[in-house]
Amino acid sequence: MDLGTGLLAQQPLSVHFGTSLDVFVAGRAELSLTIRPDMLQQHGFVHGGVLAYLADNALTFAGGSVLGDSLTVEFKLNYLRPARPGSKLRAVATVVGSGSTNAVCRCDVFVDGPVGDVLCATAQGTIQKAREKS
Amino acid sequence: MDLGTGLLAQQPLSVHFGTSLDVFVAGRAELSLTIRPDMLQQHGFVHGGVLAYLADNALTFAGGSVLGDSLTVEFKLNYLRPARPGSKLRAVATVVGSGSTNAVCRCDVFVDGPVGDVLCATAQGTIQKAREKS
Amino acid sequence: MDLGTGLLAQQPLSVHFGTSLDVFVAGRAELSLTIRPDMLQQHGFVHGGVLAYLADNALTFAGGSVLGDSLTVEFKLNYLRPARPGSKLRAVATVVGSGSTNAVCRCDVFVDGPVGDVLCATAQGTIQKAREKS
Amino acid sequence: MDLGTGLLAQQPLSVHFGTSLDVFVAGRAELSLTIRPDMLQQHGFVHGGVLAYLADNALTFAGGSVLGDSLTVEFKLNYLRPARPGSKLRAVATVVGSGSTNAVCRCDVFVDGPVGDVLCATAQGTIQKAREKS
Repeated sequence: MDLGTGLLAQQPLSVHFGTSLDVFVAGRAELSLTIRPDMLQQHGFVHGGVLAYLADNALTFAGGSVLGDSLTVEFKLNYLRPARPGSKLRAVATVVGSGSTNAVCRCDVFVDGPVGDVLCATAQGTIQKAREKS
Repeated sequence: MDLGTGLLAQQPLSVHFGTSLDVFVAGRAELSLTIRPDMLQQHGFVHGGVLAYLADNALTFAGGSVLGDSLTVEFKLNYLRPARPGSKLRAVATVVGSGSTNAVCRCDVFVDGPVGDVLCATAQGTIQKAREKS
Repeated sequence: MDLGTGLLAQQPLSVHFGTSLDVFVAGRAELSLTIRPDMLQQHGFVHGGVLAYLADNALTFAGGSVLGDSLTVEFKLNYLRPARPGSKLRAVATVVGSGSTNAVCRCDVFVDGPVGDVLCATAQGTIQKAREKS
Repeated sequence: MDLGTGLLAQQPLSVHFGTSLDVFVAGRAELSLTIRPDMLQQHGFVHGGVLAYLADNALTFAGGSVLGDSLTVEFKLNYLRPARPGSKLRAVATVVGSGSTNAVCRCDVFVDGPVGDVLCATAQGTIQKAREKS
């Protein structure tokens, strides 16, 4: 089990959601999960909080791929289309720019459907290298 | 059961998280939940996704308190302090300004602790009135 | 003079800054300006406000390229690198997704230098179609 | 001339816009400027870029009031109402939370009018302490 997958397995929330880390290379991370009934909102679509969780997590993994142990300072998310149950969510995050302590990352969240993947949310955020404890 | 509480009860994700709607008046909504072990990340703190879920939901309820049935267009979240398990999260969202179709709202997310509530995240977002289906 | 260039010429602030619209096609807009001494901050770099102005304007033009007469609802901007005077700023904005009234757009702001263009800021925002006056 | 005012005087863009620093105390900064014809957009209102400039600058001063020499990492701005010429813009920024190197700040931008100040934009951003050069 590689570093990123091990880290994901240590997140109880990600274990609960059944999230998997599909890509984790320098400058890029992809996470996915299968939509379940307990992830929905009142209109039968995926709750925005699940999209936000997946985007936030993918942004942190993308930033961490170049910075090492990291945390999300902040992010911004636009919802584009509702995601229906019975499908899979996939978050693709990339590093747009980075320095020694910070990385700016973007993330697109897709839901798969009968005619291919559809973009349902897009995010941009700031990831910061965790400081060593002294 | 009032309108807002009924709506929350129709969100399977909110039922799963045990979220309660504590305040729902024109221009303001407060949500809270008790932190559970399955809400954590790898360092033992509440996963940012839970804070994002609660902030997103509170923003939508605040906007909905003046616009009626609504959805979150986008939001931005800054993390300030990690939230520890065994405590309660409380999100306080208010309408900063609104027109006939849009509202701009803010939300502070607090975690209670031995010396009182501590701000752990703050958000700002755009809520839009849902369009009637024709 | 095409529609977009005509519109830019009606913005006194853009005339003052000497902004030009270099690309304006469905889903994409590019604006540029030459950095002048009165655009700087205290360390001799371009003031963040100029980068924000250019990103905001490019986002609106990109959204307007698919929605028609539009306005910026909100945007978020990350600064990546300082931009030095004596160079040219170029903002490249694209539509990430759009419906009948809203578009989500991204914008990268580059500064040219001895070894090519360098990304100095990146933005994401929501553009809304202007409502017809009745 | 105090520290903050001296710093503003070293920003050529702020000198050009005629910005003044009205309040600069720990945790709070207020900037204002008089709206001029060269600050407008095509509909005769203040260009969003001027509101963004003022918000960005006020956020940085607020953060700097607790961190010392600082820079804006990122910010997010919602436009609420158009601002008309012949009036004064006032940006009020406060620190929401801060640590040793970062501060999260909010800023409201008001335009004065016949019936008092009106909120025309609101922002939230991350300010970071500038690193000493070695």
